[in-house]
Amino acid sequence: MSDSQHPVRPADPSPVPVELAETAAVMLSEVRDRSPLVHSVTNNVVTGFTANVLLALGAAPAMVDIVGEAGLFAGAADGLLVNLGTPAVEQRDAMREAAAGANEAGTPWVLDPVAIGVLPIRTALAAELVAARPTAVRGNASEILALAGAGAGGRGVDASDDAESARPAALELARRFGAVIAVSGPEDLITDGSAVVRVANGHELLTRVTGGGCALGSVIAAFLGVRGDRSVLEAVVSAHVAYEVAAERALEFASGPGTFAAHFLDALAAVSPDEVRAAARIRFEEVAA
Amino acid sequence: MSDSQHPVRPADPSPVPVELAETAAVMLSEVRDRSPLVHSVTNNVVTGFTANVLLALGAAPAMVDIVGEAGLFAGAADGLLVNLGTPAVEQRDAMREAAAGANEAGTPWVLDPVAIGVLPIRTALAAELVAARPTAVRGNASEILALAGAGAGGRGVDASDDAESARPAALELARRFGAVIAVSGPEDLITDGSAVVRVANGHELLTRVTGGGCALGSVIAAFLGVRGDRSVLEAVVSAHVAYEVAAERALEFASGPGTFAAHFLDALAAVSPDEVRAAARIRFEEVAA
Amino acid sequence: MSDSQHPVRPADPSPVPVELAETAAVMLSEVRDRSPLVHSVTNNVVTGFTANVLLALGAAPAMVDIVGEAGLFAGAADGLLVNLGTPAVEQRDAMREAAAGANEAGTPWVLDPVAIGVLPIRTALAAELVAARPTAVRGNASEILALAGAGAGGRGVDASDDAESARPAALELARRFGAVIAVSGPEDLITDGSAVVRVANGHELLTRVTGGGCALGSVIAAFLGVRGDRSVLEAVVSAHVAYEVAAERALEFASGPGTFAAHFLDALAAVSPDEVRAAARIRFEEVAA
Repeated sequence: MSDSQHPVRPADPSPVPVELAETAAVMLSEVRDRSPLVHSVTNNVVTGFTANVLLALGAAPAMVDIVGEAGLFAGAADGLLVNLGTPAVEQRDAMREAAAGANEAGTPWVLDPVAIGVLPIRTALAAELVAARPTAVRGNASEILALAGAGAGGRGVDASDDAESARPAALELARRFGAVIAVSGPEDLITDGSAVVRVANGHELLTRVTGGGCALGSVIAAFLGVRGDRSVLEAVVSAHVAYEVAAERALEFASGPGTFAAHFLDALAAVSPDEVRAAARIRFEEVAA
Repeated sequence: MSDSQHPVRPADPSPVPVELAETAAVMLSEVRDRSPLVHSVTNNVVTGFTANVLLALGAAPAMVDIVGEAGLFAGAADGLLVNLGTPAVEQRDAMREAAAGANEAGTPWVLDPVAIGVLPIRTALAAELVAARPTAVRGNASEILALAGAGAGGRGVDASDDAESARPAALELARRFGAVIAVSGPEDLITDGSAVVRVANGHELLTRVTGGGCALGSVIAAFLGVRGDRSVLEAVVSAHVAYEVAAERALEFASGPGTFAAHFLDALAAVSPDEVRAAARIRFEEVAA
Repeated sequence: MSDSQHPVRPADPSPVPVELAETAAVMLSEVRDRSPLVHSVTNNVVTGFTANVLLALGAAPAMVDIVGEAGLFAGAADGLLVNLGTPAVEQRDAMREAAAGANEAGTPWVLDPVAIGVLPIRTALAAELVAARPTAVRGNASEILALAGAGAGGRGVDASDDAESARPAALELARRFGAVIAVSGPEDLITDGSAVVRVANGHELLTRVTGGGCALGSVIAAFLGVRGDRSVLEAVVSAHVAYEVAAERALEFASGPGTFAAHFLDALAAVSPDEVRAAARIRFEEVAA
C-alpha cells in the first residue's frame, strides 16, 4: 500500500478498478431507468447512428442544431454533446449557443474536437469551446494533442497516435480546464488531472463503423446526465466501459462491420449490468499533482 | 346499429374496419406497382433511414431541400413530406417553397411538426405551415396538442402523452384546417374531423429506431400519391397499417433494435397484401359534427 | 483482329478484360493496404452509408464540406468525391473550393451530378464543375445525358434510361473534358473516349439501398487514390468491379434490402481479390476516335 492509493483530495476519493466496474454496471441501469435526454449537436455523417446508439441504450436523443433553439434545448437536456465533425456556419453558432445554454443551466457537456489540428476553422472553434469549460472532452490522441497545442492534428477521424502518446497533453488539459479528458485508442486513457484510468475493452470493429467514436461522446453525455454525486471521472469511465463491453458482446454475432453495427445496437440494449461488471478491463493510476 | 354508423356525409361514406383493412392491402400493392415519387424535406438525423424505408416499400425517394429547387420538385412529385426536426435557416425557406409548390401543383403533402411546443422557431414555423393546409399532419400527442395550442410540447421526439389525450385537439385541427390528423402512439389515432380511426398495429421497437416515426410521414405521402378517388383518411390509415404490420413481421427475426431496423426494411419489401389485410387491427368511430 | 484492337494511343494501351479483372483484384488489395484518405463532399442522405462503405473497404473516409476547410482538405486527401445530391448554399461553395483544391494539389476527383436536368441549381453547378475537369464522372444515364446537354434529366436518383442510351453522350463528354465517364445501370458503361468498358456485375438490390450509387462515387475516388501508373479507366473499372462483386457476395446472406445493406458492408471487407478476379464480368470495346 503506497501513499498514491490514498488520494490527496479526500472529498473526491479516487475509485479503484473494482469499484469503477461496479459503478459502470450501476450507471448503465440508471441510464436505462431514467432515460436522460441527450442533446447532440453533431456532424452530419453520424446523426442517425448516434441517435440509434442512444435509443438502444435507453436514453432519449434529440438533435437541435439551429440558432435560436440550441441554447434553450441545452438548458432543458440532461446532457449535451458538441461534436465538431462538420461545423457549417449556422451549426457553429448553434454550438456556441448550446455550450452557453448548458453552462447557464448546469447541464453537463462533452466536446469532441473531431479532426482538429490542420483544419483551421474547427481548430479555432475547439480552442474557443474548450475555454467555455466542457465537463469532458473526448477525442483520439491526435485531436487531444492538437487541442493542447502539442500536435499537428490527424488527417481525419482516425488517430495516427496511440492514446498513451497523449497522456501528458491530456493531463495538462484536464488541469488547465477542469475537465475530464478521454483519449480513445485500443486502450482508452481517461484523466481528471489527478488520476489516469485506462479502459481496455472494445474491439477494432468499432473503428470500422462510422460514428463508433462520435456516438461514444453522446453516451458520455448520457452517463453524465445521471451522474448524481459520483465524480465526472467515474461517469466518463462508466460510459466507456458499458459502451465497449457491448461492442465485445456484439462480436459473437457479427461477420463484418455491417452486421457488427446492427448487433452492437442490439447489445447496447441487452448487455446486463452483471456482464459489464464482469467484463470490465480497467487500470487505475494515481498521478502526482 | 345506431345512427352513428350511418355517416352524415354521404358523398364520402365512412369506411368500416374490414373495408379499411382491404384498402390498406390494395394500396400497398399500388405503391409497389406505381412507385410514387416522394419528396421529403426532413431532418438530418433520419434522411438515410427514410430513403431506405421508401425504397424498401417500392416508392422512389428524393430529398431536395434547397431554395430554388424544393418548390419545383414538390410540383413534380407524387407526394411531399415536410418534417421540422432540424429546421436550419435555408431548409426553412425550402420548406415554405415546397409547401407552396405542392399546393400550386396539387401534390398532397404531410406536415410532421417534430418537437414543437417549447422550441420557438419550429413552433412558429409549424403554425405557419399548417395554415398552408397540408393534406395530413402526423405527430405524437405532445406535438398535436402543441399544434392546437393546447399543450406545452414534448421534450424531443418521444411523446409524453398518449394518443388518446390528443383526441380533442386532433378533431379540432382536422376541422379547422381540413386536414387528416394522425397521432402516433401504441394505438394511433387518425381523424378527418368526422370519424376517428384507431390502429393498434406496430411494436415498441419501432420507437427504438431513430426515424421510426419520421419515416412514417414519408410513407403517408407515398400512399397519398396513389390515392386516386379514395379519401385522404383511407390513405393515411392504410399507410399506418402497412407500415406497422411490416414492423410486426420484422419482430420474429430481430434480437434488438439494430437487427430490427434491418429486418423492418426487409419486411416492408416482403410483406404481402394478404398479410396486411389479415393482421390489420383497426377500430372505427363515427363522431358527431 | 481489326485495327480497332490496337489502340491509337500507345502510351496508354487499352487493357483487355482478363487484364482488367486482374487489375481490379490487385487494386482492391492496394486500397486495403494503403488505406487512401477519401474526402467526400456529398449529400445529406448518404453520408453515413458512404463512410461505412469506405471503412468496410479499408479506405479512410472524411467529409469536410465547409468553406475554409474543404479546399485545404481536398489537397491533403488521396481522392475526392463531389456529389450534388443536396447542394445547400454553403456546400456549393465548399464544392467549388474542394474541386479547386484538388486540381491544385493533383488530387484525383469524381463528380456525381445527382438528379441534374430539370433542377436548375444543380444543373448549372454540374456544368460549372465538369468544366473544372474532374478525373471521372459517375451518374445514371439520365444524368449523363443531361450533363451532355442531350436529355431532360431524371426525376430523382433512379435512372429512367439505361446505360447504353447514354453511350454517345458519355463518349462526347469523355473527349470534351478529358474525363472517364461512368454510366450506372444493370450493365455499367465506362469510357475514356477511346474505349468503352461494360461491367455486368452487381444486383438490383443495390438500387434498393439509399447511397448504393452515391457511395460508388467515393469508392472510385479511393481506387483513383492508389492508381499509380495505371490508367484512370482501369481504376474506375476496378472500383465498379470490386464494389459490385461484393454486392453479389452479399446476396446469399440477404433476405431483403435491410439485411442486404449490412451484408454488403461485410462483403466489402471480406471479398477476396481472387473472388473479384473470378467473378468479374467485363466487356471491352475499342472505339474509333
